[in-house]
Amino acid sequence: MVTRMVDLRSDTVTKPCEAMRAAMAAAEVDDDVLGNDPTTLRLETDVSKIMGKEAALFVPSGTMGNLISVLVHCDVRGSEVILGDNSHIHIYENGGISTIGGVHPKTVKNNSDGTMDIDLIEAAIRDPRGELVFPTTRLICLENTHANCGGRCLPVEYIDSVGEVAKKHGLKLHIDGARIFNAAVALGVPINRVVQAADSVSVCLSKGLGAPVGSIIVGSESFINKARRLRKTLGGGMRQSGVLCAAALVALQENVRKLEDDHKKAKVLAVGLSKLKGLSVDIASVETNILYVDVVEGSKMTTEKLCKYLADHGVLLMQESPSRIRIVLHHQISGTDVQYTLSCFQQALMNGEHVENGN
Amino acid sequence: MVTRMVDLRSDTVTKPCEAMRAAMAAAEVDDDVLGNDPTTLRLETDVSKIMGKEAALFVPSGTMGNLISVLVHCDVRGSEVILGDNSHIHIYENGGISTIGGVHPKTVKNNSDGTMDIDLIEAAIRDPRGELVFPTTRLICLENTHANCGGRCLPVEYIDSVGEVAKKHGLKLHIDGARIFNAAVALGVPINRVVQAADSVSVCLSKGLGAPVGSIIVGSESFINKARRLRKTLGGGMRQSGVLCAAALVALQENVRKLEDDHKKAKVLAVGLSKLKGLSVDIASVETNILYVDVVEGSKMTTEKLCKYLADHGVLLMQESPSRIRIVLHHQISGTDVQYTLSCFQQALMNGEHVENGN
Amino acid sequence: MVTRMVDLRSDTVTKPCEAMRAAMAAAEVDDDVLGNDPTTLRLETDVSKIMGKEAALFVPSGTMGNLISVLVHCDVRGSEVILGDNSHIHIYENGGISTIGGVHPKTVKNNSDGTMDIDLIEAAIRDPRGELVFPTTRLICLENTHANCGGRCLPVEYIDSVGEVAKKHGLKLHIDGARIFNAAVALGVPINRVVQAADSVSVCLSKGLGAPVGSIIVGSESFINKARRLRKTLGGGMRQSGVLCAAALVALQENVRKLEDDHKKAKVLAVGLSKLKGLSVDIASVETNILYVDVVEGSKMTTEKLCKYLADHGVLLMQESPSRIRIVLHHQISGTDVQYTLSCFQQALMNGEHVENGN
Amino acid sequence: MVTRMVDLRSDTVTKPCEAMRAAMAAAEVDDDVLGNDPTTLRLETDVSKIMGKEAALFVPSGTMGNLISVLVHCDVRGSEVILGDNSHIHIYENGGISTIGGVHPKTVKNNSDGTMDIDLIEAAIRDPRGELVFPTTRLICLENTHANCGGRCLPVEYIDSVGEVAKKHGLKLHIDGARIFNAAVALGVPINRVVQAADSVSVCLSKGLGAPVGSIIVGSESFINKARRLRKTLGGGMRQSGVLCAAALVALQENVRKLEDDHKKAKVLAVGLSKLKGLSVDIASVETNILYVDVVEGSKMTTEKLCKYLADHGVLLMQESPSRIRIVLHHQISGTDVQYTLSCFQQALMNGEHVENGN
Repeated sequence: MVTRMVDLRSDTVTKPCEAMRAAMAAAEVDDDVLGNDPTTLRLETDVSKIMGKEAALFVPSGTMGNLISVLVHCDVRGSEVILGDNSHIHIYENGGISTIGGVHPKTVKNNSDGTMDIDLIEAAIRDPRGELVFPTTRLICLENTHANCGGRCLPVEYIDSVGEVAKKHGLKLHIDGARIFNAAVALGVPINRVVQAADSVSVCLSKGLGAPVGSIIVGSESFINKARRLRKTLGGGMRQSGVLCAAALVALQENVRKLEDDHKKAKVLAVGLSKLKGLSVDIASVETNILYVDVVEGSKMTTEKLCKYLADHGVLLMQESPSRIRIVLHHQISGTDVQYTLSCFQQALMNGEHVENGN
Repeated sequence: MVTRMVDLRSDTVTKPCEAMRAAMAAAEVDDDVLGNDPTTLRLETDVSKIMGKEAALFVPSGTMGNLISVLVHCDVRGSEVILGDNSHIHIYENGGISTIGGVHPKTVKNNSDGTMDIDLIEAAIRDPRGELVFPTTRLICLENTHANCGGRCLPVEYIDSVGEVAKKHGLKLHIDGARIFNAAVALGVPINRVVQAADSVSVCLSKGLGAPVGSIIVGSESFINKARRLRKTLGGGMRQSGVLCAAALVALQENVRKLEDDHKKAKVLAVGLSKLKGLSVDIASVETNILYVDVVEGSKMTTEKLCKYLADHGVLLMQESPSRIRIVLHHQISGTDVQYTLSCFQQALMNGEHVENGN
Repeated sequence: MVTRMVDLRSDTVTKPCEAMRAAMAAAEVDDDVLGNDPTTLRLETDVSKIMGKEAALFVPSGTMGNLISVLVHCDVRGSEVILGDNSHIHIYENGGISTIGGVHPKTVKNNSDGTMDIDLIEAAIRDPRGELVFPTTRLICLENTHANCGGRCLPVEYIDSVGEVAKKHGLKLHIDGARIFNAAVALGVPINRVVQAADSVSVCLSKGLGAPVGSIIVGSESFINKARRLRKTLGGGMRQSGVLCAAALVALQENVRKLEDDHKKAKVLAVGLSKLKGLSVDIASVETNILYVDVVEGSKMTTEKLCKYLADHGVLLMQESPSRIRIVLHHQISGTDVQYTLSCFQQALMNGEHVENGN
Repeated sequence: MVTRMVDLRSDTVTKPCEAMRAAMAAAEVDDDVLGNDPTTLRLETDVSKIMGKEAALFVPSGTMGNLISVLVHCDVRGSEVILGDNSHIHIYENGGISTIGGVHPKTVKNNSDGTMDIDLIEAAIRDPRGELVFPTTRLICLENTHANCGGRCLPVEYIDSVGEVAKKHGLKLHIDGARIFNAAVALGVPINRVVQAADSVSVCLSKGLGAPVGSIIVGSESFINKARRLRKTLGGGMRQSGVLCAAALVALQENVRKLEDDHKKAKVLAVGLSKLKGLSVDIASVETNILYVDVVEGSKMTTEKLCKYLADHGVLLMQESPSRIRIVLHHQISGTDVQYTLSCFQQALMNGEHVENGN
């Protein structure tokens, strides 16, 4: 019988706390599609200020936030977007920018720290003189923190440089900031400074921040006006969305400050796991709340067996590949949970050895 | 100073009641994108049973419910859908089925009762022998109740006949059932019987049923599986959606039975308004919770002045056209509200006369 | 054994004459995709002058001409086009403007003369204030002559009025002018005057004009620049297209003047057929080279039998519907062919009677 | 004054020879959109046999051939295609598969010989279990010869291996065979064997083969039926296309055998240029009719000056990048032209030196 449940699959699994539930129950609401929901408007105003942008729009998910942002920047047929070959938009969003939006992606190699080389970005921009055969580059997308690169942060100087390239070529810059608060905390830089160079940012409220549902996109007034209309087209307009935004307001107030602790717990777990025989963790690359654990080559233990064993003991993990496990920390994982997880790993590895010896 | 607020613009303005707020606060939730949210699963199971279909999917809005349904049925490039020229999908959803989905609409004239002539529907189906120049008809859409036709209900026999045409030609039938519960109540027919001929139905939970956010689509297992994926593509996948679904479960339990009363209040209002000099109401066509009030030709009163006057007195209306006002009843409008609205109309008309005489 | 072949299915069946073949064989050519083909450039220059527009672009077909024109005018996602419910673009072009271009069509009823009521057009334009739920109207399409309305011509005053509506609302006006030369000839108005109000026109060179392949679109420089790029995207850029354009230049020089004769032959055929018992022809509506023959109700003769009989005697017709046959005249149909066709009809009807009497 | 014109920009610049012109002038034609053009049908039958496929379809360009092929294989919304990051479809076709077709591209690195590593291809195929967030991989595209990789040929064994991967995963294999005849000649393998593993191939008739206009796609009956319809949608259906196909039939008969000579001339030019000081040519990689000439680093001569000098002397080249020139041989370049080109290069380099010394 499982007595403890430690869900480390993602920070999307965070559940609304009591304060959020109370806020939802008490939320002042009206019809947001008609533009009247006060709590949604408050959240949008608050976030736009925090992020240092003119306006904001609440959307049901990060995927919609990115989809709308890319499509608004690329609203003319024949557009191309430059983005990382390992980015969430390219890999995990169903190819929606093309299959729904008709935008052509041009990928640039993501380095292991989530950056793309600036000169490769610039080289990927289509020469406008070749426009008879080239789509028109209209947008560059960054991701910060970069999920598939282990939650690593893009430094502000890097983002600024990409922003300069974008400006120089008349392009827009969008940041998939699903975990942008984690980045700001880890970088120790105010979040409005982190995203200063961006024309738009999508921010997830239901990952580390712990709100039940929703993301928010920020940008100029004119960007958000177009985004609002496209949200309606996609079916993302919600009526009394204030119930969700009330929880999100609590998330912003209560949970941003917990992110630093999440990062520390990730580090503790990383260090602990790195000491276990048969596992390998690149501790230096654990900058935020995500870590990768690799089963060392030659080991008879597999990620499948490991995940199975831990799941049987209440610890849920995400198998990233046959040799890699992804672990995501969040504020509903305690220090004890971390220790419990470590001991489960240890036991799984020991048992694995015994079983193998037994054979 | 406005002391009373009577919002008759739409039934989308209904606000969550105490029971819903309590349910949201207490909802058991998990990550629905990972398939684990128990409250969302319960709502989906309940609604699929009520509607007599294999499966269901919770979505953020009716627009997304319709968009997903049309796109799933028309998943092959080159598809055409037959739908009413006055239907919500054609008029009020940004043309999303084309602009986002690449589906070509073929409209058939909506009669004033919301039906389309069966022979016109059949004539609109493309001859497969002409497929070199014709798109492929894949879907027929009905709307029940029909918003733009004054909330009138499609009779079951009519729906069945359209269903037979669809089957005969190998097409699917989708019902935009934003207010399908109103239809079932008004028809006095079990809702699963009303939608029996349909391959899919979208049902709004945040209109007359009063849930804060969301619609639900029902259909076969295979339809819903495709719909789930497309929901993710569009960005309609929500994490702890159980908080919304908990409210929706209350809506189903508490508010379906209130719809009949909404219809009665609409009738009372219609009869009352029809007696006012300068206004005209087709009482017979008021079948559910929507009514149209026409300013009689030659009158010096305008809908604009009327709406302004009533708004100043706390009664919000929707100006449908220069000569027509749309009024929608819902469970948060009391009998007293109805009487107050009537008296405001009366006063507005009288004042209008005075003002005119005074000039 | 068929001794004579009279192909009246369409004017697309016209075959290149000797002069065209000689021109193709002698054409000066180069790579038009690189912008170097002199004969293509000459044709484009000539046609743009004839039509009174800044620039022109040769395309492989009328369908591509219309598709490019609609897509260039509606290059921003979320566009809507107003067009006739009986127009070629809506009925016979695979719904490409939606399925390939993502443009949402809003149809207005075509009157029997090919016009749409001006006030209906204006009413169909979306209110920009409702842009949250409405697509953006960007284009009105006319068709002149109107194929599905029996080749009838839109008068210049009518086109001008539609042009004024377009201008007033900031919309563009495109004319599907597949047979615009027929219209100009029938109206007795210079063609540049006929299309004066249009922002773009597509003109077919391989219908009545008799060129083997191709259409041409005309409009402003900026329109044609965008069109050229979209032509490349669609795959309509052709290398030594001068061989086709050489034939088209002959077509313009030789065959425009023959159109009047085509119209006369259509009239002769119409009058002749109208005198045959069992057939009905609306002679007044035969304005150009197209005519409809209806089998009178109650007749035991069917269009299917008629077409079959005539095909067996070398006369090819297009069955428009169970009761209607479409006949299209062109310069490769002689006066004798017309008489032969009339006598075949007569014989078919007499035989039909005999057969029926014999039963 | 230029006395000689040597156009080495591309093999698309080839002009129809006398035999082609005669064939066009004499071509038996009819309406191909109605399915009646005998010369087009003959070409399609001939090519399908030569390529060992069931059926074929004539299209106006290679871009349309590829676009149709990708879209037919990916006819369901949500499709992804795997293709080379340096492939013509990805780089030079306006992103049409996304912007027109809504297909999401997943690129794999092209090696310098035009191949993509088989294991990288296999790794790029989306796991069907992740279909909630992944598009569905439906197609792999190869390019043979590979234009951007210097016209290098994919060996038959390689293509077969990719075909096996495709089959194993239920995917289709399309070959962009714009210059597939060059590949077959260079490989010394019958062309039907070269494309054996492919479900579809697009073949250009107006490059090395010298026809004025057109490409042809081959595949199964069912593939071609869908392709024919999509060709109509895109506007690629042409009426008396027999005039073009007559020339293409001559191209097949006369010019395939000349390709070997083109390859030899390319080699001669490559060897000659490699001996010039200041230039560098990778002779081994010149497998067909394309060669790259690099200006060696540190040289004061630039590609821009080189191209300008040669153009002034009648030799047209394509500047590929600031340091690279692309040269394409074809049957209308004689051995003397090659020698003339070499001497122009030599002179340009010498002059460049003098000028520089003079400074």
